[in-house]
Amino acid sequence: MRDIKKRGKQTVVFERPPVITSYASIVGPKEGQGPFGNYFDQVLPDYMFGERTWEKAESKMLKETVKIALNKAGLTENEIEVMLAGDLLNQTISANYAARDLNLPLLGLYGACSTMAESMLLGAMLVDGGFFNRVIAGTCSHHHTAERQFRFPTEQGIQPTITTQWTATAAGAVLIEASGQGPRITAATVGRVIDMGQKDMSNMGSAMAPAAVDTIKAHMDDLGRSPDYYDLVVTGDLGQIGKAILEELFAVKGIVPKPSYNDCGVLLYEESQDVNAGGSGCGCAACMLCGPFLKKMQEGNMQKLLLIATGALMSPTSIFQGESIPAVAHAVAIEMV
Amino acid sequence: MRDIKKRGKQTVVFERPPVITSYASIVGPKEGQGPFGNYFDQVLPDYMFGERTWEKAESKMLKETVKIALNKAGLTENEIEVMLAGDLLNQTISANYAARDLNLPLLGLYGACSTMAESMLLGAMLVDGGFFNRVIAGTCSHHHTAERQFRFPTEQGIQPTITTQWTATAAGAVLIEASGQGPRITAATVGRVIDMGQKDMSNMGSAMAPAAVDTIKAHMDDLGRSPDYYDLVVTGDLGQIGKAILEELFAVKGIVPKPSYNDCGVLLYEESQDVNAGGSGCGCAACMLCGPFLKKMQEGNMQKLLLIATGALMSPTSIFQGESIPAVAHAVAIEMV
Repeated sequence: MRDIKKRGKQTVVFERPPVITSYASIVGPKEGQGPFGNYFDQVLPDYMFGERTWEKAESKMLKETVKIALNKAGLTENEIEVMLAGDLLNQTISANYAARDLNLPLLGLYGACSTMAESMLLGAMLVDGGFFNRVIAGTCSHHHTAERQFRFPTEQGIQPTITTQWTATAAGAVLIEASGQGPRITAATVGRVIDMGQKDMSNMGSAMAPAAVDTIKAHMDDLGRSPDYYDLVVTGDLGQIGKAILEELFAVKGIVPKPSYNDCGVLLYEESQDVNAGGSGCGCAACMLCGPFLKKMQEGNMQKLLLIATGALMSPTSIFQGESIPAVAHAVAIEMV
Repeated sequence: MRDIKKRGKQTVVFERPPVITSYASIVGPKEGQGPFGNYFDQVLPDYMFGERTWEKAESKMLKETVKIALNKAGLTENEIEVMLAGDLLNQTISANYAARDLNLPLLGLYGACSTMAESMLLGAMLVDGGFFNRVIAGTCSHHHTAERQFRFPTEQGIQPTITTQWTATAAGAVLIEASGQGPRITAATVGRVIDMGQKDMSNMGSAMAPAAVDTIKAHMDDLGRSPDYYDLVVTGDLGQIGKAILEELFAVKGIVPKPSYNDCGVLLYEESQDVNAGGSGCGCAACMLCGPFLKKMQEGNMQKLLLIATGALMSPTSIFQGESIPAVAHAVAIEMV
């Protein structure tokens, strides 16, 4: 008899919830100066990390983050069965070169800034499904590589609009195992691609907020939960504007997540740090999860977390061709059980 | 008791092998003139598919291919639980916009030309693991979008080297279900990222061949099989040069896959079609699988197929920065059982 783990339309509940037995994060200088600077495993003094290019630095951040996570668990790379990773760069080169250097089987992902949740939900399915015992899931982003690729090279000194978000220089990785000590991934919701017709690449928060609402509503409906089931419901990188839109959409749909709702893009920086509408990038949700959130859970200060990482799925080419911005949000429920 | 489905280092064997209950392919004009032109569901008369840009045409190819696959199965989009897809374009926009238009939950992938196998092995794990009952897996590529993005816009008329491969204009999709009639996905091998130091973006076959050999060897070792277990062992898009290198490497490692070995990039076009070293692109393996191979299985003319889709994981940026080309190959075993 086949036991189906799906609940409702888009959510799965894990039978033997996989364990996050280790995690790590590395962030850039600006993120280190933010309110959670002390929670990260490593704060880089500059954007180069000893490499000749920003892109190589970004890939190194992911590789070193994985190594720290493994080191904390007393493991080496050859004890890891599969790596699930992706990033923002064209052809996801940060993940590809990191996996090459780590000599790991790679399942490459592209979910833009939703990648942390995507890699974790797939990793949890692969472990709970009995295919692997030990996988690593992670992602990264870098302020200067993302600006160069999606907007303008930062050397040009282009003035950002107030709706622009600051791509975090950050990486996060979790070790997911079939058994062990740590918070468990108990459920996950795979997001639909939602596009409300927004075309402004300098205002990602408003493009992504409807996808986050769609996934959170699906998660709650599928499981018959209300947001107060969780100690914290946290979106990936909607920033100030996206967060405000999400809260309005919640009100319209009768979802009341306060006071337990927040956004990683709002939390990552101090208001004084001049990041316009807040933080963004795959690394934003990744470092907040693999820094403060998992640490708080480990210390007994948080029991139930719902992370909804949000990704904007356009490219500069699609925008130049007149397309609007599709977005996706994937949710993972993490609980001390 | 947790039943582990992994065998050896990188291979999983499915407990209740998921069924390919439907499949479809759409190809461009050149592929339609090749030796397998009659096996595809639709041959486009031109490269635009009624759209204003090649990129939009590529995304439409994937979307319409999914629709044909669903139509053959008598299903509509809202009966599909998850789409697993990716493509070659920056930020995988073909898959993203296709999933948007199909209104489907998306797990976005990036495995370059290994995507067909990656999407199928993940889809099979999600179904065999009991998370979903019905998923769609697919990918696509387009000659002119790939040339523009990775090499030169085709309007420039740049002379290709003889080692260059012709990116196929093609899309393929399979419907994977927990039960039903059709070939089954019985096993899968997740590939390691292999980089032998090759840096020539106009010679992908030679960069990818070692990854294909690594994965095929892992698959055979993990399962204790020899290649003659399969009626056909077929790589994704090594082309003439990559295929020759693979056969040499096989000889070195004592693997004897002949006469059952071939390559989709060699098979897709007639020698007279002027494609230099052969076909390539995500769509190359995808349309050969979702055209001739699955049709032959369905008709009882092939029982056991091992598809090893191969992907080159560099980007133009990484090459400009002096990096070599990492490659990955994922294998799926498809059997009439």
